Parts: sequence; structure tokens; C-alpha cells
Amino acid sequence: MIKNLKLTSIDGAKKTLVKVGAATFGKGLVVIAGPCSVESEEQFITIAKIVKELGADILRGGVFKPRTSPYAFQGLGLAGLKIMAQAREITGLPIVTEVLDTRDVTWVAEYADMLQIGARNMQNFSLLKEVGKTNRPVLLKRGMHSTIEEWLSAAEYILAEGNPNVVLCERGIRTFETYTRNTLDLSSVVAVKELTHLPVIADPSHGVGKPSLIGQMSLASVAASADGLMLEVHNNPEEALSDKDQALLPEAFGEIMKKVRGLSDYLNG
Amino acid sequence: MIKNLKLTSIDGAKKTLVKVGAATFGKGLVVIAGPCSVESEEQFITIAKIVKELGADILRGGVFKPRTSPYAFQGLGLAGLKIMAQAREITGLPIVTEVLDTRDVTWVAEYADMLQIGARNMQNFSLLKEVGKTNRPVLLKRGMHSTIEEWLSAAEYILAEGNPNVVLCERGIRTFETYTRNTLDLSSVVAVKELTHLPVIADPSHGVGKPSLIGQMSLASVAASADGLMLEVHNNPEEALSDKDQALLPEAFGEIMKKVRGLSDYLNG
Amino acid sequence: MIKNLKLTSIDGAKKTLVKVGAATFGKGLVVIAGPCSVESEEQFITIAKIVKELGADILRGGVFKPRTSPYAFQGLGLAGLKIMAQAREITGLPIVTEVLDTRDVTWVAEYADMLQIGARNMQNFSLLKEVGKTNRPVLLKRGMHSTIEEWLSAAEYILAEGNPNVVLCERGIRTFETYTRNTLDLSSVVAVKELTHLPVIADPSHGVGKPSLIGQMSLASVAASADGLMLEVHNNPEEALSDKDQALLPEAFGEIMKKVRGLSDYLNG
Amino acid sequence: MIKNLKLTSIDGAKKTLVKVGAATFGKGLVVIAGPCSVESEEQFITIAKIVKELGADILRGGVFKPRTSPYAFQGLGLAGLKIMAQAREITGLPIVTEVLDTRDVTWVAEYADMLQIGARNMQNFSLLKEVGKTNRPVLLKRGMHSTIEEWLSAAEYILAEGNPNVVLCERGIRTFETYTRNTLDLSSVVAVKELTHLPVIADPSHGVGKPSLIGQMSLASVAASADGLMLEVHNNPEEALSDKDQALLPEAFGEIMKKVRGLSDYLNG
Repeated sequence: MIKNLKLTSIDGAKKTLVKVGAATFGKGLVVIAGPCSVESEEQFITIAKIVKELGADILRGGVFKPRTSPYAFQGLGLAGLKIMAQAREITGLPIVTEVLDTRDVTWVAEYADMLQIGARNMQNFSLLKEVGKTNRPVLLKRGMHSTIEEWLSAAEYILAEGNPNVVLCERGIRTFETYTRNTLDLSSVVAVKELTHLPVIADPSHGVGKPSLIGQMSLASVAASADGLMLEVHNNPEEALSDKDQALLPEAFGEIMKKVRGLSDYLNG
Repeated sequence: MIKNLKLTSIDGAKKTLVKVGAATFGKGLVVIAGPCSVESEEQFITIAKIVKELGADILRGGVFKPRTSPYAFQGLGLAGLKIMAQAREITGLPIVTEVLDTRDVTWVAEYADMLQIGARNMQNFSLLKEVGKTNRPVLLKRGMHSTIEEWLSAAEYILAEGNPNVVLCERGIRTFETYTRNTLDLSSVVAVKELTHLPVIADPSHGVGKPSLIGQMSLASVAASADGLMLEVHNNPEEALSDKDQALLPEAFGEIMKKVRGLSDYLNG
Repeated sequence: MIKNLKLTSIDGAKKTLVKVGAATFGKGLVVIAGPCSVESEEQFITIAKIVKELGADILRGGVFKPRTSPYAFQGLGLAGLKIMAQAREITGLPIVTEVLDTRDVTWVAEYADMLQIGARNMQNFSLLKEVGKTNRPVLLKRGMHSTIEEWLSAAEYILAEGNPNVVLCERGIRTFETYTRNTLDLSSVVAVKELTHLPVIADPSHGVGKPSLIGQMSLASVAASADGLMLEVHNNPEEALSDKDQALLPEAFGEIMKKVRGLSDYLNG
Repeated sequence: MIKNLKLTSIDGAKKTLVKVGAATFGKGLVVIAGPCSVESEEQFITIAKIVKELGADILRGGVFKPRTSPYAFQGLGLAGLKIMAQAREITGLPIVTEVLDTRDVTWVAEYADMLQIGARNMQNFSLLKEVGKTNRPVLLKRGMHSTIEEWLSAAEYILAEGNPNVVLCERGIRTFETYTRNTLDLSSVVAVKELTHLPVIADPSHGVGKPSLIGQMSLASVAASADGLMLEVHNNPEEALSDKDQALLPEAFGEIMKKVRGLSDYLNG
């Protein structure tokens, strides 16, 4: 049913383990956390320390933001990356950030421990090829309109360039439902596990877009066999410059961390 | 965001418990299992004994089948109901079956312990009103094209007629993805829990339509806080008269039962 | 690609002509017009006279309304049908109305010249069989979630019962787009023409749900080879009891009538 | 309902006319035609001469192909552009081609008269900004998952960089329907006309993906007020290197040209 899977196919392949700092995707539950955007040194360092304290494995933060409107906050760029690097120094956690432009891949890869390809760029084939030429692990989000076949074919573009370190991320697809921001398709996590040797995580924050639903959907993601979670956390969501409606408060994040770690231990213990 | 919820709204309401035989939706995990269609006495009694043995709480079986084509098997009707009643005698398990026509509600309600409204009839308002006039618990599946608001409004139709015993069932929505039969929207389970006092279960069999994905999605459903599961089981899926591609073999069903019971105990214990 | 089409297939079949009063679907452009709901004698007779004057061929009006919420206006029932019959007397135009319940089909068929199966009941197979047993022409709307294959299979149910007089109606499918109420899929009109011998019309009122878009989409429907149009007209939309946001004012309807008649003549002249 | 439209809003603005060679989008019907991919000098020049002869205004051809699989034909790149330039010399028709990578924009803009942003890159904001910095007219396709609001916001990115010459192109959205390749949403053409001053065309070839449906949908597009059409034509579709199932044969294209020109004259004459 899924055509042209060569390098990503599970047939005869060993499960891929992707190392990012001290974390290994494919072994235990890896939690990526942080704010949607890097807004300032104070904001990012503060949140970085909090999520480290609460058990996150990797820091996330956007410095190039793909915003629907050109009049919305577009990210801090290089200045943001420097703040992220500083947070890595302080917390010891590796950092992942989204890259949008082929021209930025090389220099962003010097700062970031992992490069993210966002949902809107999942079929930006030039960008896929470019991150495929780096030696950085890549977090490949599923396009909001993309079939599982298209998602794995996008991963195939990266592997075909020589970079085997791809982690897939289900972040919700676009449907007619409007109560949630997107529809988090956890069956894709299970499907990908039977089709490919790559690790796959879930992003309930973007998947549902409502803090009140994120905790339970994080547990569901772990039960669906996700190798990790990506969660948006902000110490002051109401004043966040992007995605303010879906960020978790530190306390809620801490609660979720306890539960998902416990569930992961129960399921794999 | 959800308008006109009066009787189903959680505001100020106690969680509804729906009793069907010895099972109580809203208290522990209730598992409904059985074949898609009642095909013959031998087939149904055989499967009924198996699922009872493996821990199911309620027997399912279709005697009126809503088939896309008029040339496909349409169900055994009354003869099928009698077989189901016989299986109840033998196993002691209550039975649930789908009703399609307002004219059938009264007499089907005499045989069945619980009436199912299928996805295609979720907005068949005459039928909703009719089952609302009975004293039988109703299993209300979400339409494959229905928003959460429409689904709860459909429940409202039943409650407004005086029947408070409604159990909601997420069974997957229709999206562009073709790898799975539908997209099981587990966020709807969580959303319904924060909006209404009614119990809600998940149907991973219809939700994904592939046996290889059902076990993991059953676990995910439980982790998403579903009050129960509906699973299709057949002792000889290849010769099933309907939905043969998605039925679980008894052995797979037994494995899933162990895991979901264990998970439910872990999460609620 | 479309399976199990026997009675509706175009292979070797002559185009079906469906007569309703003086109008013939399959020959020229048939326009069905009127309010969403029959609200009162005065309202319906007024609008009936207007649309007759402006060139409509058939009167529409709902007396059983399939409303999302049980607390919304549900229609006048028999009283409404009697008003429609009166309007037929006065205008000489035949009437079409939706039927929702198998128990109502026989007596509604005594009043109405054409029976409508609405989008929400397109896979209410009991209802399809029941209208298939009458000798009334049937207007079969496409379900908002239904594939072309499912839509034609629904028509097959009606023909299989002995009623050959089915007219298909594209009324928009549900997608992620929220600017329009639904997405009017005109390619389905063309597709149906190459697959089946049945006439097919379009309902731009429900398809787009915005008066400002309906005129142009009516022209597009005619150019896509629709055999007719169904349009909602109200003399006082703001006080309409249902669908008030999409009804055309008489003047706008008159303008559209001139343009679509002209275009139909141009294309077929 | 549509937020943040500043530069593209119709409020108080004059309709934009976009000139590409002798053609003017916004004045009469502009037809863009040619093969999906530039495959060879012989192939492209042959088709270019044919479509010129049959009345096309602009030549299309892909030299960078955004293919789902990395193992599919990716386009001829610069060699393809040179062939396109040669075809322009011979036919006198301007050329439009898709650009995928920010690094290619400047040099491709030296060859092409119009730059296309494909559906998969509609929210590749870096690319939008880059074509916004050129003085070339831009053909902006709607993403297969994009709302009208997102589409116009993408246009806003281009205008905000100083390039006012944007032509929008509806090419079908992704829905659950599988009979057609996509669902051509002609209501978006009408909606865009009431929201913005930019010209908008339709691409029935991608929209439906079946030659048998393209002619009628081209007429429907014109009736929906599209300012132009984009059509794929191939003299030997069965051996085409991409999109072979949807290309029109020259004869069919010629028939469509006669009909759409006639209809355009009728509607605007």
C-alpha cells in the first residue's frame, strides 16, 4: 500500500536509535519541551530552567516562525539561536529548532543539536535535501494535509542524502472538526511503527491546541507507542508572542511529566 | 463554543452511570465484543462463548446492516435477534445491536439490552427521538462527518425525550488519510469528558480498520480516558459476511483484553 | 473504480428523464425554489407567488426540519404540507419536500409531487427503500461526507425497489474550509454524468451558504452541466426560522434566474 | 472573517491587472498551457507549438518537480529553462515555471516571465518573500490544505515585499473524495473576487486529475468568474514523466479552447 519505501522501510531493518545529547529516540520516552518562540533571553532561560527541573530531555524554541500573516511575529533569528545556545550551557539540555530556508541550514546546524522541519515544509523538497546533507538529527513533522505515505516519502528524501537520523513527529492533521486545533492522528504513530524503523513522537500541543486536553492526549500518545512527546510550555502564556492559547503552564507540565513517565515505565517495565 | 447543550452539559451535573446487565459504563472499563454481523447460530454462539471466556462484558452483533450497496448482505433481522437472545442465555452477557428504522425500535428494544445508533444515523433525528422514548440504554456512535457539537446535540435529542442512559462512542471520522479506514479521533473522547456527564467509549475496530493497529489503539483509547471499548471479533474473519478485513482473531482479542485491563487498573488503581 | 453500479450505470442505458409536473429533469434547466422552511401560510404563499413570477419550475419548502439541536424549529409537519398543497393550487407549480421518517413516506407522498432525501439521510437505507416503494420522483441529496460511489449506491437502493425516478443533487461536502458553509463539489456533477444515466442538479444555497456567492456558483453549476438548480429564497431572510443566512432575496433570485436561463440557452442552443 | 488583509483587500482598491507578455490577467480569459514537466527539447517545442496554434496565451512547463518520492523524475533544471526560453523564441509566448528553492529565485527569474509558487510551497514563507523581492509576476497556487484566509495571507507576504503582481490559482483542495484527484473548489474563486483585487485563475487539470472531467470543469471555472485557466497538455500522455493520467491530448485541448473562449465572450460580451 505504501510505495517506494526503500531506506525507511522496516523490512529487514533494525530499529533506528537517534541520539541527541544524552537522549536517545527509540529508547525510553524522550520529552522535548519549551516555548513556541524564543522571545527574549529572560523568557527562554526561565522556561528552560523550569522544564529541565521538571524532567524534559531536550529544549525546543522557534527562532524562525512560519506565521500565516506577514504582520505576525516572525522570530528572533540568529539572536534567538544564541539565546538557545546559552540555555543549553546553563541546563545541559540539547536544543531543537525549526529551519525554514535552505540558505539557513548550514549555519543553524552549527548552533542546534537537532533540526526541525515543520508541518508546512514537509514537502519542501529542497529543504529536505539540504537537512539530509547535514549530520544533524532531523525532527520531521507530518504535514497537516499529508498522508502517511507522503510523510514517509519525505523522510526518504532525507535518508537518500545520507542522513539516517530522522525522528518522525505526528502533530495533527486538518479535518472538519473545529473544537480542536487539529486532529491528532495517533493511529499514524502505530502505523509508522509497523512500516518503518524510524522513531516517532507525538506533539499533542499542536495536535489539539487546548491545554485542558493535552495531558490526557500525552498519555494516549505514550500508550500508542510514541517514542517521545513534544510539548509547549510557557511561564506566562497570555503574553506569549505565538501559540499562546495552547501553551502549558509549568505546573501542568510537571503533572503531565509525572504521569507520562509513570505510564512509560508501566508499559515498558 | 458548543451551543445549546442543556441536558448533556457537565456544568453542575453528576457523571452519569449507565448500567447494562452487570456492566456499568462510567465505572471501570466496559468491553463490548462480538462479530460485525450475526451470520448464523453456530457462528454467533461460538464467538459469544469465546469473548465471554476472554473477559468481554457485553455482546455485540448486527442484525440490520447499513451497507453501502443494496447488493451486500443486509443482516438476518428478527432471526438474528433471536440468536443473540440465545447467546445471552448461554453466556449471561447482555446484548447490544444497531437499530436502523423508527418502526423497529419498539420490538428490537424487547430483545436487546442496549440499542445502538450507528454513525450513518447519528443525525437521523426521528430515530434519535424514537430510542429516546424507550427505557433502553443507547450507544450513540459519532457520525463520520460529525463535529463534537453535532454529536452532543444528537445525544441531547435522546435525553430530551426522557431517556438519560446514553453512552457516546467515538468510531473514527472521515479524513483524507487512506491507510486507515477512518481516523480515530481520541481527542474527542477527552473533549467529551470535559463537556458532558455522559460516558464515552471508543471503537478502534472501525476507527482504524486494520487488526495490526487495533491493539495499540485500544491502549491509547484507555489512556485517553475512554470508559470502554467496542471491538469486532470473529473466529473466521476471512469468511465474515461484513467487515472481514478488520475483525480480530480470538487470540489477538485475548491479548488485547489482558493489556487493556492491566492498563485500566494501573491508571485507576 | 465505482463498484456495484447496476441499475444506475450509464453503460448501455438511455438518459433518464424525470417528470415533475410540467418540468422534466434531463431536458433544459429545472429550477427548484422556495424558503428553507414552511413557516406560515402567509410566508409560504407569498414566496411561492414570487418565485413562480420569477420563473421557478418547482416549489421547495421543508415541513420536517433535520436540525442539529432539538431546541431549534422542527417544522410544521402536516400543517405545512397543507400550506404547500395550497401554494400548488395557486401557482400551478409542483412541490418537493423532505421526508425524514419511514413512517411518514406514504402519507407525505400523497401531498408532495417529489420527495427529497436530505444529506443527513443519504445513508438511511430504510428510508431509501421506503421511497423506492412509492411512485414519486425522489430528489437524492449527496451526504456531506459521502463519496460519489456511496451517493450512487444510495440511488441504487431506490431503483432496486422499483422506483426509477431519481434526481441526484450535489449540495456541498464538508471540508476544512470555513469561509463557505460547505464546499460545492461541481466535479461531482460532471463525474455523475459520465457514470450514470440519472439527472443531477446542484444546490448552491447549501453548497456555499453565502448569498453573495450563490449567483456565480449557480452559473458555474449550469456550465458544469447540471440539469437544474435548487435555490433558497425568502422575502424576509432575517426573520427566517432556519438557514436565514443563506436565503436569497427575491430581487437577487430574479437576477440569477435571468442569467442562468440565458447561460443554459447559450450552452444548449 | 478574514483577518489581516491589508495589501490584498478589495476595500477601496482598484482591480489589479497583471501583464505577462501580451496577456493581461484581469482582462479577458488568459489560458496557460503546456506539459507538466519539460522532458526534452523535442517534447516541449512540439507541445509549445501546438498550444500556441490552439490559442494558449502563456506556456507552462516544470523544470523543478516537487515529487512525493525522491526516486521520481525531479526535472531538468537549468537545461529545462533553456528549452523553455527557446520555445518562447519560437512561439512568441511568455513562459511560467515553478520555483522551489529560495536560492534559485534570482536566476530562474532571469529566464521565466512569471514565477509559480506551487501548492506544497504556499506556506513556504521564505520563498514567498524571495519572489516578492523580484519584479516578476507570481502565480500563487492555493495549498491543498489551505483555507482562503491562509491563501490570501500568503499573497500578502509577496505584496509586502514590494511585488504587486500576484495572480491566484485555485487548484483543488484535499478532501475524502477519491474519484477525483482533488476537489476543485470553485467557490474559492468567487470568494476571492469579493475579498481581494487580485486576479484569480483555476487549474482544472490538477483540480480533478481526469481528462474526461476537465473540459466541463474549465467551463464551470469560467462561469465562476475565473480570469484564466491553467491546463496540462501533452502530445503523448502515456509516456509523460509526470502527471500522465491527467494531461489533455491536443485535440481535446483545442475543443476546450473553442468552448471556453466562446463562453467567456458570451459572459463578458
